[in-house]
Amino acid sequence: MKKITPKILKGFRDFLPEKKIIRESIIKTVKEVYERFGFVPLETPALEYAETLLGKYGEETDVLVYQFKDCGGREVVLRYDLTVPLARVIAMYPELPKPFKRYQIAPVWRAEKPQRGRFREFIQCDIDIVGTSSMMADSEIVSIMYKTMKALGFDRFITQINNRKILDGLVTSLQIDKGQSPVIFRILDKFEKIGSEEVKKELLNKGFNKGTVNRLLQFIQIKGSNKEILSLLKKMFPNNSEVLKGVEELKLILNYAKVGGVPEENLKINLGIVRGLDYYTGSVFETVLLDSPKVGSVFGGGRYDNLIGTFFNKEIPAVGVSLGVDRLFSAIETTKILPTKISTSRVLVTIFDESTKVQSLKIADKLRRSGINAEIYFDKDNLEKQFTYAYKKGIPLAIILGPKELKNKRVALKDLRSGEQKTIEVSNLIENLKRIK
Amino acid sequence: MKKITPKILKGFRDFLPEKKIIRESIIKTVKEVYERFGFVPLETPALEYAETLLGKYGEETDVLVYQFKDCGGREVVLRYDLTVPLARVIAMYPELPKPFKRYQIAPVWRAEKPQRGRFREFIQCDIDIVGTSSMMADSEIVSIMYKTMKALGFDRFITQINNRKILDGLVTSLQIDKGQSPVIFRILDKFEKIGSEEVKKELLNKGFNKGTVNRLLQFIQIKGSNKEILSLLKKMFPNNSEVLKGVEELKLILNYAKVGGVPEENLKINLGIVRGLDYYTGSVFETVLLDSPKVGSVFGGGRYDNLIGTFFNKEIPAVGVSLGVDRLFSAIETTKILPTKISTSRVLVTIFDESTKVQSLKIADKLRRSGINAEIYFDKDNLEKQFTYAYKKGIPLAIILGPKELKNKRVALKDLRSGEQKTIEVSNLIENLKRIK
Repeated sequence: MKKITPKILKGFRDFLPEKKIIRESIIKTVKEVYERFGFVPLETPALEYAETLLGKYGEETDVLVYQFKDCGGREVVLRYDLTVPLARVIAMYPELPKPFKRYQIAPVWRAEKPQRGRFREFIQCDIDIVGTSSMMADSEIVSIMYKTMKALGFDRFITQINNRKILDGLVTSLQIDKGQSPVIFRILDKFEKIGSEEVKKELLNKGFNKGTVNRLLQFIQIKGSNKEILSLLKKMFPNNSEVLKGVEELKLILNYAKVGGVPEENLKINLGIVRGLDYYTGSVFETVLLDSPKVGSVFGGGRYDNLIGTFFNKEIPAVGVSLGVDRLFSAIETTKILPTKISTSRVLVTIFDESTKVQSLKIADKLRRSGINAEIYFDKDNLEKQFTYAYKKGIPLAIILGPKELKNKRVALKDLRSGEQKTIEVSNLIENLKRIK
Repeated sequence: MKKITPKILKGFRDFLPEKKIIRESIIKTVKEVYERFGFVPLETPALEYAETLLGKYGEETDVLVYQFKDCGGREVVLRYDLTVPLARVIAMYPELPKPFKRYQIAPVWRAEKPQRGRFREFIQCDIDIVGTSSMMADSEIVSIMYKTMKALGFDRFITQINNRKILDGLVTSLQIDKGQSPVIFRILDKFEKIGSEEVKKELLNKGFNKGTVNRLLQFIQIKGSNKEILSLLKKMFPNNSEVLKGVEELKLILNYAKVGGVPEENLKINLGIVRGLDYYTGSVFETVLLDSPKVGSVFGGGRYDNLIGTFFNKEIPAVGVSLGVDRLFSAIETTKILPTKISTSRVLVTIFDESTKVQSLKIADKLRRSGINAEIYFDKDNLEKQFTYAYKKGIPLAIILGPKELKNKRVALKDLRSGEQKTIEVSNLIENLKRIK
C-alpha cells in the first residue's frame, strides 16, 4: 500500500483518551440529569434527505449544511442539528405517546468557516418536549438547564430568557411587514458577537429606516430586574396582544421555575436574546457562564410550535434546548472543574519473566473478576520500562510477581505515585486493592 | 414553510426510545468490559480525507465508501470502519504511549445494498492493541470477546480463530503468485454466506485451475479438535515456515487465553475463517452465536501488522476486533436476553387541578433531588388520562396530590402495575419509594 501523510480535515478533531474520558464524563452527567426528569433517548441517522432539512433554519444557515448526492443519486445531507430530525420522527411515528420527552446526544455537522471555538463537527445534547403548549414544559426546560449546570460543577452561570412573541409584537408595532421578521431576528441575534454598530449597519443595508433600526436596538438593550422589565413592557404596549401574550408566558415560566428549584437570580429576562434560527415561536433561552463569557451560550433553545407542522397535517407544539459539549468543555478546561483522569486502569500487572507470565495472566483475570480494572504488560521489557509505561498512562498501581514472591503465594504491590512498595499475600490482594484510594 | 412527507433514507434507521434504551445498555456493558482490561476511549471524526481511507480495504470494499466533495472541493469520505482512522491517529500522534490500548464506539457508514440485517449506518465497538507483536495481546482480545459476551448475558457462543500466515503458507505451497492472495481471501471469506459451489465458480472465473481451487476448498473445510488441526498442519506442511509460524502463534494464543479465563470449548480453530479485508496479517477471529447462526459473526477482527505502516516510516504491529451492536441486538431481540424497559421515569407526578400545580412541582423537585427519576404531567387532563400516559410510557408509579391529601401533608401513591393505591405522609414519601421495586 502506498505511503500517505496522516492528516485530519480542518474544523474536525480527534479526541485522544485524556480528553475523551472527560467528554464522556460530561455526557454521562448530562444524561443522568435528563433521565432524572423522565426523558428517554432517541437516535436518528446522520444522513437525511436534503428536503427534510433544508428550508427550516433560514437561508443563511442552509448554505452551512453538508449536502451531496449519494451513490443512488439521492440528494442527502449530514444532519445540521437534532431538532429537525426530531420533527421528522414525530411526524413519522404518530403513535409515540405525547408529550414526547426525548433527549438525543449526537454529533452534528456544519460547513462553517473554521475558527477558534467553531468546529465543523461537534456534539449536541438536545432535550425537547413535544406535544404540549403548557408553560410548565418551558419551565421544566429551564429547570433542566439549571440542574445540568449544577451537576457539572458550575456555580456561576445564568439562564437568559426572552419570548419571540414579544419581539413579534415589537415588529408589528413598528409597522414592519411580518415577512421581514426572520431577517431582522437573524441580524439582532448577532448583537453580542458583532456589536451595536455592525448590527445597525446590517439592518440599514436591508433597507430598514434609521428610526426603526434605532428603536429595535434600543429595545433589545432594555435593562432591569425581571419585574421591572415585565411591567415596563405592559406599559409600553398596553394593547399589543402579541407582547402581552409573551409577557404572560414569561411570568408563568418564572413562577414555575422558582417552585421547581431554580433560584430567582439564576433566570434573567434579556430582551436581546433572539436566537438565529427561523423556527422559534415563543420562549427563547440561553445559558451563559459568568466567568467564561467568551465561550458564548452553553445551552440555547426555545419553543417552536410550527416546525413539526411542516411535516404534518396538524400543528404540534414543542420546546427544547441544546447543550454544546464543546463550549462546556472549553470552559471546564479553563476553570479546571473536572480532574484529568487519563487512565481507565487501576493496576498494571507486570511480567517478571517468561516463567511467570502465566501467573501474571491469572492475577489479572482475578482482579477483573473482582471488578478491578487491570491491564497486563505484554512485552519482554525490564520492570523499569514497565513502570514507565504505567506512569505515562496514569495507572496508579503496579503488581510485581517474581519467582520468590510466587513461591510464597505473595505479590509485591507498588504505588507508583508514592513509590511505596509492600509484599502481600495473594489471598489478601483484592481486599488490599479495594482499600487503596 | 412548505409541507414535506417525512421519510428516512433506505438502509438507515431511527431508534425509538424502547430500542435505544436497550442499545444504550448493551454499549454500557461493552464499555465496562473494555475498561476492565484498561482500554481507553478515542474519538475520531466522521469525515476523513478520501486518500486516508481508500486503498486500505481492498477494491471490492472501496466502492462501498461514501465519498463526496466538500464545500472546499476536498475529496472526503464518511468513515467506513474505525480501524483505518485508528491507524491515522497512531501516525499523527507518535507520542501516544505504546502499547496503545484504545476502544472506540461509533457509527460507520457503508453504501451497501440494503437488505435484511445489512444497514448503511451502524455502530461498531472496536477494541485494538497497537504497538506489540506479543501473542499475549491476541489472547487478550480473545479474552475480551469472551468476557463481553458473558457480560451481555450470552452463554451459547464460540470464538473461531485462524491465522492468515497459515493461509499465506497454503497459497505459497500451491505456487500461486502472492499478489493473488487478496483476491483468493476475499472469495474464500464468502464461503459461509454463498456456499462451496459459488466460491468455486468465483475462483475458477478468476483464472485459478480446478486442482488449486479444490485444494483451497478442501483446506478451509478441515475439521477437528484444536489439537488435531495443529498437528495435522505440522504434518501437511513440515517445511513451510509461514504455516509453522501461524501454528506457533495459534498455540500460544490458545494457551494464554485458557489461563486468562476462556474455557477451552469456547475457542475453536477454524481454517475457514479468512476475513474479507486485505489488511490482516496474522490472527483472525470471529465470534458466532450458536443459537442465532443467521446473525453472522458478532465479533470479527484480527492482527494487522502492516496497515499503520502505510502512514509511517516504520511498521507498527496491531491487533483488534470489532463488535457489531446491530447483530447483537437482533440476537438479543430473538433470544429475549435483555428485558424491555421503555421508560427512564419511575414516577409520574400527576396534576389534580390548577390550585395544586405548584405543590406537584415541589414534589417532583424533591424526588429528583433524592435521585429518583420523576416526571410531571403538563396539561389539564383528568387523572384517568394522566394514568394512561404513564401506562403507555411504562412508568410504574404515580403520585396523586388532591386538596384533601395536601391539607394533611399526604399524597396518594398508586402502583400502576397492580392498581394498588395507598396514602402516605409526604415526609415518608422518598423512603417509601425507595422500598418499592
